[in-house]
Amino acid sequence: MYREKIKVLDCTIRDGGLMNNHDFDRRFVREVYKAVSQAGIDYMEMGYKNSKELFSPKEYGLWKFCDDEEIQKAIDGIEPKTKVSIMVDVDRVNMEDVKPASESPVDMIRTATYVKDIDKAIYMANHFADKGYETTINIMAISRDQGSELDEALRQVEEESRVLALYIVDSFGALYQEPVERLVKLAKGILKTKEVGFHGHNHQQLAFSNTIEAIIHGANFLDGTVYGIGRAAGNCPLELLIGFLKNPKFDLRPILDLISKELVPLRSKIEWGYVIPYAISGMMNEHPKAAMALRKSAKKENYREFYESLLNLGLD
Amino acid sequence: MYREKIKVLDCTIRDGGLMNNHDFDRRFVREVYKAVSQAGIDYMEMGYKNSKELFSPKEYGLWKFCDDEEIQKAIDGIEPKTKVSIMVDVDRVNMEDVKPASESPVDMIRTATYVKDIDKAIYMANHFADKGYETTINIMAISRDQGSELDEALRQVEEESRVLALYIVDSFGALYQEPVERLVKLAKGILKTKEVGFHGHNHQQLAFSNTIEAIIHGANFLDGTVYGIGRAAGNCPLELLIGFLKNPKFDLRPILDLISKELVPLRSKIEWGYVIPYAISGMMNEHPKAAMALRKSAKKENYREFYESLLNLGLD
Repeated sequence: MYREKIKVLDCTIRDGGLMNNHDFDRRFVREVYKAVSQAGIDYMEMGYKNSKELFSPKEYGLWKFCDDEEIQKAIDGIEPKTKVSIMVDVDRVNMEDVKPASESPVDMIRTATYVKDIDKAIYMANHFADKGYETTINIMAISRDQGSELDEALRQVEEESRVLALYIVDSFGALYQEPVERLVKLAKGILKTKEVGFHGHNHQQLAFSNTIEAIIHGANFLDGTVYGIGRAAGNCPLELLIGFLKNPKFDLRPILDLISKELVPLRSKIEWGYVIPYAISGMMNEHPKAAMALRKSAKKENYREFYESLLNLGLD
Repeated sequence: MYREKIKVLDCTIRDGGLMNNHDFDRRFVREVYKAVSQAGIDYMEMGYKNSKELFSPKEYGLWKFCDDEEIQKAIDGIEPKTKVSIMVDVDRVNMEDVKPASESPVDMIRTATYVKDIDKAIYMANHFADKGYETTINIMAISRDQGSELDEALRQVEEESRVLALYIVDSFGALYQEPVERLVKLAKGILKTKEVGFHGHNHQQLAFSNTIEAIIHGANFLDGTVYGIGRAAGNCPLELLIGFLKNPKFDLRPILDLISKELVPLRSKIEWGYVIPYAISGMMNEHPKAAMALRKSAKKENYREFYESLLNLGLD
């Protein structure tokens, strides 16, 4: 499945950070950068750039803020085959904190948004593009927003922004391959001058297959994480994606070593992967936050009660 | 995705038994039957019927032999919504051990075969059909056998057998959705008077998505196991499949309870699911037996070395 235009982005630290308040130590982040760079991955996303006025550095780790100096330390001295990305959320970043690209180790800024906030996202992405960054807009929770407002948002992104790619983000792990096909075709039809990206969640074990489905229908920007780490059930496992793509520029070995040495031990401290309440959230097209709270409670294995609580949502 | 012709078969005990020498205790098997029957699953497969002259009952559990009396005990007194299936391998069963269906608690016998043994499989399936059983033929390791011999085998099954369904079995977890589409269409094109079935393995987290893909292209016999238990990475999780099918005859709750009470504790004793050596086997289209041996050795987390050993296969 070799297609030169395909770009793979590793978001191990960024999406994985949603499971530990972005509190990875500097050594771990360096090891990930080293491995993905050796593996030939195109981009690595370091975390979110959030305003320190909205979130306290006492409560969150370094990768909730992604100061340029910290990123520089994480990559210093490592052959930089992999470009650096950060993510920003609408209304959570102080845009004046973002220096011009020429003064920053960051290459790309991805703006995450819901369909309703697309105007803000386009404004932000254009601001970052003005500062010299590569940009994308990532539409979250798209399984809930497949109507005419999505069509309009896509048209706006095409006409009003200068992003490299528009990402379809299955935040709830709710999409099956037919909706992925439909969404990618929809986006490809409207975005004539941009690439389409896909970011899957693995709540129903479909992150990898949905990524393949997106590739089949023309998506060229693909997200993965090492060993599938990420919010709730996690993301498309980067190692499976590389194995599928068969692009000679990728080398699986450094990723396998990283999993052996770092991710397997980490999995005994942080939970992600196939866990039934996340699967239930996915099949019900719900945000996984209720399932994540359940997993921290004494009722963590009470699946039936959790399922019935979601069935009853909105029936009152 | 409601389609009345769809039949779901649970093979928790049969495929899961490949991870514990078929040594589930009677209580556990009863609990599984109770749950799948309450959930409305069409068939449950209890294990293999192997000749006791070839395999010693001292080395294997009850479900390697599937004596009628044991099956009867397992289902006795439970409302029998679910039909009972057993599997036989070519050359491993003494066919005279199989009583007429009218004297047995078994409803269906599935014959597992490689393409090369299709003549024997058809002979066996016809023998069981003569005795009054529903029958299927399940072609294993199909990812290695996609050439003209497969076409011929499918034609023979259509013309010479009386099976209800011909199963495509992705024993190595090597198929992506495009090959599944191709294989199901191929089988549907040839098997005009039989149904097509699909049995996936989850080595690359594709068992569920490949099952969906098979459904999309017309497969109506679908295998799953509770919590995905099965050889190596396991099978399509039954709970996800039911969640997808949305057939009102299925009830997810008994399956969720079974996972909470039985499968989660079992998972701490038997390993299945997403484990990197199984993923590597899948992407290399290899039998998982080398990976299963690795997981029992001191090198169980040495993924790079294992990957390189498979890369070097056949290069000497």
